[in-house]
Amino acid sequence: MIGVDWGTTSFRAFRIARDGTIRDRRTALRGLLNVPDNRFADTLREEVGPWLAAGEDHVLLSGMIGSRQGWMEAPYLPCPAGAAEVGAGLMAIEFDWGQVKLVPGLSATDEAGVAEVMRGEETQVFGVLEAMGGGGLACLPGTHSKWVRVEDGRIVGFTTHMTGEAFGALRGHTILGRMMREGPTDGAPFDAGVRRAGEPGGLLHHIFGARSQVLAGELAETDAAAYLSGILIGHEVRAALAGRHGEVVHVIGAPELTMLYAWAISAQGGYPERHDGEAAARGLALIGGHATWN
Amino acid sequence: MIGVDWGTTSFRAFRIARDGTIRDRRTALRGLLNVPDNRFADTLREEVGPWLAAGEDHVLLSGMIGSRQGWMEAPYLPCPAGAAEVGAGLMAIEFDWGQVKLVPGLSATDEAGVAEVMRGEETQVFGVLEAMGGGGLACLPGTHSKWVRVEDGRIVGFTTHMTGEAFGALRGHTILGRMMREGPTDGAPFDAGVRRAGEPGGLLHHIFGARSQVLAGELAETDAAAYLSGILIGHEVRAALAGRHGEVVHVIGAPELTMLYAWAISAQGGYPERHDGEAAARGLALIGGHATWN
Repeated sequence: MIGVDWGTTSFRAFRIARDGTIRDRRTALRGLLNVPDNRFADTLREEVGPWLAAGEDHVLLSGMIGSRQGWMEAPYLPCPAGAAEVGAGLMAIEFDWGQVKLVPGLSATDEAGVAEVMRGEETQVFGVLEAMGGGGLACLPGTHSKWVRVEDGRIVGFTTHMTGEAFGALRGHTILGRMMREGPTDGAPFDAGVRRAGEPGGLLHHIFGARSQVLAGELAETDAAAYLSGILIGHEVRAALAGRHGEVVHVIGAPELTMLYAWAISAQGGYPERHDGEAAARGLALIGGHATWN
Repeated sequence: MIGVDWGTTSFRAFRIARDGTIRDRRTALRGLLNVPDNRFADTLREEVGPWLAAGEDHVLLSGMIGSRQGWMEAPYLPCPAGAAEVGAGLMAIEFDWGQVKLVPGLSATDEAGVAEVMRGEETQVFGVLEAMGGGGLACLPGTHSKWVRVEDGRIVGFTTHMTGEAFGALRGHTILGRMMREGPTDGAPFDAGVRRAGEPGGLLHHIFGARSQVLAGELAETDAAAYLSGILIGHEVRAALAGRHGEVVHVIGAPELTMLYAWAISAQGGYPERHDGEAAARGLALIGGHATWN
């Protein structure tokens, strides 16, 4: 089968054998935002045409491609949901060269009853189910980080944290960014930001330190962005791990980002285990195994 | 004397009698950002020329006019500092039509030793010293809100919260703003945001609710901005009042904003007392009384 993790900015396709091993892969910067005139069928044909020509007939798409801004909207499935429920809830889509199905996103409510949605992350979480032993806590850092709770192989709930997007808005559109110069994203200033998040005063006060300490000559302009990043990630991890100290957290994503999160999780008393983006391929294979193909 | 609260966006001048009563006032949108080519002397002459012509000779300027981006930089005085210390630390400035002096800003370190600075707010706090009985907690909401601790008539410390600027960046430059339409800034959605700030999950999670609840049909697009504002102000007040429940908070500023803060402070167990911007005039009069004029 062919599995595609198709998001807002990137397109990652995997050719997957029956036993779940990855036979081939393709990555392109052809996310939703970069596909002109909604030419999703053409894009898919161009990217995985050779695999289709070689006889692959089952194509599974996960991620924002199934949103209102994507190819077609696949309604959210309510939690709790495992790979079986998701596999039974796929949405078939018109395509002239093989069977194409969309993975639906998941919906939930958080502890306070506030609505939550995700699209694509569920597939990555299913990809690390085995490593999780079927249950536990997963973290998918990014523009909108997700913290996902799994029980008996099913996603039972999750929360979204706008950490990445808030970082971009604060750096790009407040006075904080005016004093920042390019520098490393990790190291001592990031750690200092994470520690700062554990002190009194609150996030809105802590971030001001990325300016006041530069003014006071206590923080280099090249270190201010890493410090701000540490504050925000530190606050996210602290809130997400409240009451869960000592828990293992499965962090899924690009290595640069999971490394920062692993550090912040350790600093807050959690035990991080890192997984890379190939989790999506394993999740697509698992869901595909539960699907009904013609 | 003439007192001017001269900030980044506005210019507010007061003609003050010897006994501290305000004899006249002028307001203009001639803050630092709107004074071309640093023509501060011309601007001052144009705005308060009639008062100078009538014999006023003592002019005191507070606010960002004394910053590096202003007329001349008046170095920060370290806390603790009262009106006497500030009055003794004024910086005289060249002007052809009367004596003009700049009020210095204050510097401090917060509980964790992180640098803090302010310019202009100290003058407003001195203006409500009498109402405060010489001690207590003051809050000056805004782009960069200040929470100021006063003991025996002197400012002993303060913290900055980037609430107003963070709100602008999140509304203007993240996905949250795309679902917002003009609506009231107060009322039930604001209150709901303040309550939300008291729940688990953290600020970066709570703000996502301003999107997810609109998607779920649980929050109107015209209410989303007030809800986001409530979340941010709620988090600020919660952090600033931690361990200070039951304390009176003197909130100084424009009525629309002090009303929102008073509500959030009450909701967190504090006792708000509101003061308007004329506090600046009383503070300038108090500092001016401690100054040495030729």
